[in-house]
Amino acid sequence: MTRPIIGRVVPERWRATGATAPGQRTVGEPGIARIAVDLLGGDQAPAVVVDGALRACKADPALHLTLVGPADAADAVLAALKPGDRRRITTVTAPADSVGAAVHAVTEGRADALVSAGDTRATVLSAAREMGRWPGVRRPALTAVLPTAAGRLVLLDVGSSVDPDEETLTWHARLGAAYASVVLRMPSPRVGLLTIGTEPGKGDRLRRALPARLVDLPLPGGGRYAGLVEGGDIVTGRAADVVVTDGFTGNVLLKGLETAYALSGPPARNTDPPPRAALLLGVSGTVVVCHGAATGRDLAAGIALAADLHRRNSVAAIADLLSAQRGIA
Amino acid sequence: MTRPIIGRVVPERWRATGATAPGQRTVGEPGIARIAVDLLGGDQAPAVVVDGALRACKADPALHLTLVGPADAADAVLAALKPGDRRRITTVTAPADSVGAAVHAVTEGRADALVSAGDTRATVLSAAREMGRWPGVRRPALTAVLPTAAGRLVLLDVGSSVDPDEETLTWHARLGAAYASVVLRMPSPRVGLLTIGTEPGKGDRLRRALPARLVDLPLPGGGRYAGLVEGGDIVTGRAADVVVTDGFTGNVLLKGLETAYALSGPPARNTDPPPRAALLLGVSGTVVVCHGAATGRDLAAGIALAADLHRRNSVAAIADLLSAQRGIA
Repeated sequence: MTRPIIGRVVPERWRATGATAPGQRTVGEPGIARIAVDLLGGDQAPAVVVDGALRACKADPALHLTLVGPADAADAVLAALKPGDRRRITTVTAPADSVGAAVHAVTEGRADALVSAGDTRATVLSAAREMGRWPGVRRPALTAVLPTAAGRLVLLDVGSSVDPDEETLTWHARLGAAYASVVLRMPSPRVGLLTIGTEPGKGDRLRRALPARLVDLPLPGGGRYAGLVEGGDIVTGRAADVVVTDGFTGNVLLKGLETAYALSGPPARNTDPPPRAALLLGVSGTVVVCHGAATGRDLAAGIALAADLHRRNSVAAIADLLSAQRGIA
Repeated sequence: MTRPIIGRVVPERWRATGATAPGQRTVGEPGIARIAVDLLGGDQAPAVVVDGALRACKADPALHLTLVGPADAADAVLAALKPGDRRRITTVTAPADSVGAAVHAVTEGRADALVSAGDTRATVLSAAREMGRWPGVRRPALTAVLPTAAGRLVLLDVGSSVDPDEETLTWHARLGAAYASVVLRMPSPRVGLLTIGTEPGKGDRLRRALPARLVDLPLPGGGRYAGLVEGGDIVTGRAADVVVTDGFTGNVLLKGLETAYALSGPPARNTDPPPRAALLLGVSGTVVVCHGAATGRDLAAGIALAADLHRRNSVAAIADLLSAQRGIA
């Protein structure tokens, strides 16, 4: 079941590209965020990406965008902005491999983070190759946040690891606990394993083997393994704050629930819905992925998520937490 | 990836146990339905099963129940019924393997169908062993119906085949098309394959290999392969009427959506929700499975589904359709 390890490992580079040195972390600071946007990513690209970029610029005056893709799409954004706002736009012409060019903009320090609604595999491969993976991470995890009746829940992976092995899902547990602690500020996140029944021995081969590995796994951020959870627990939020699964099941469930919530409303009415976008965890950089079917509104939410994660220095803080926890374990 | 074939194959017995001879099919007839009920199945058994049995008896005066399990639970049902209704109850004392005893009640002609909220594997194994599988069926499929914004949708498998191979999912396509045609009376059901993106090459190994097998597959009931579908399509119902997947993904998605609909309402408000129960397709008998977490209301709905499927002779009609279609193919 083991998939080839993709991308290079950069042991000396746990931290996000462009992050400050250890001990100088700056968290929660407002300020300029420079986001590279893949104009060619998405089923309806570039039109929805142009729409999303304009929405994001209007909502956030400190946002700067590096638009990567065909020149005419970038021109459409510039033409729709007021002259005074055009200085916030940089364009990079890339007739092909726009996501690769967007990754380069981040690794070369010209952007702080990137957003793409393009092919997930291409984005994961490009990010892993150019930014490097964190030590031990075989397969970076797309990490999404869903609304629940009880609040919010972290679901990973939602599309990167489609044939994962036990080691990959064990890493997802670590990554998810760190995300919940740093980004959602949950004090002791409960980490559950998604399966089809809570009695021992239920589930497929992977799920029958995993509990023995997870039960004693040290987790960052005070996280603890909360046992087996089922599909309904992703909606109620009762059993876990972080739910670990393979990227196939996670993607199917995420798209199903997002569509159900779009039609019938979320499980709790009094909270703002989380963005329909996922952070790629396990690479040394801030990479946000939107669905192929993302709307302009979804892309704007993905850009806002990337800007927020950058301003809070979240990816470096997650890497620090994992590094420290591994030192203890 | 191939799992051991379970149960015996009974080539001469495509038809449901107790069905009439070919050419004498009786569909849509009202009348007495004798349902065997597993009193020990379910997380809250026997209390919820007692509740479900009473609800079902009250709702359907032509329903007869064979209650299988501990005597005190059966007595609780009898005590709560009016004296005139007690003749509709038969009891079978089974301190253990209550689902096996319920299966026997059907194979021996003492009941027309059975309902259990117990361990799915035990039910599938017992049914396959005692009733026999249809020729070609490696793994019977738990077949559920979900509400969609467009109407109703058949999802299979929702928990029987957790590590299936290509042949098993190919059979699910046939079984699902026949179910949609016979039970939901859909004229030309569109059969989709659940995956994580509609571009070719998306998905895990199983899903990348399957489209080549499905594209030219003759399907019963005028069914046709409608291509790849995603999680959101299970909610909208736009892309397919029948959706094929492995039992792990199907179970997770079903429980997630059922819980979302229970909290926020179904995707279309003007229709009665389908029962939260699944038919085990591929064995020579009518076997309905409820979730382990089923409520009394869910069990009553499962019993009503079993009675309806028996009265309409649905399982024999599905077997006939598959047999005829294989003769042509």
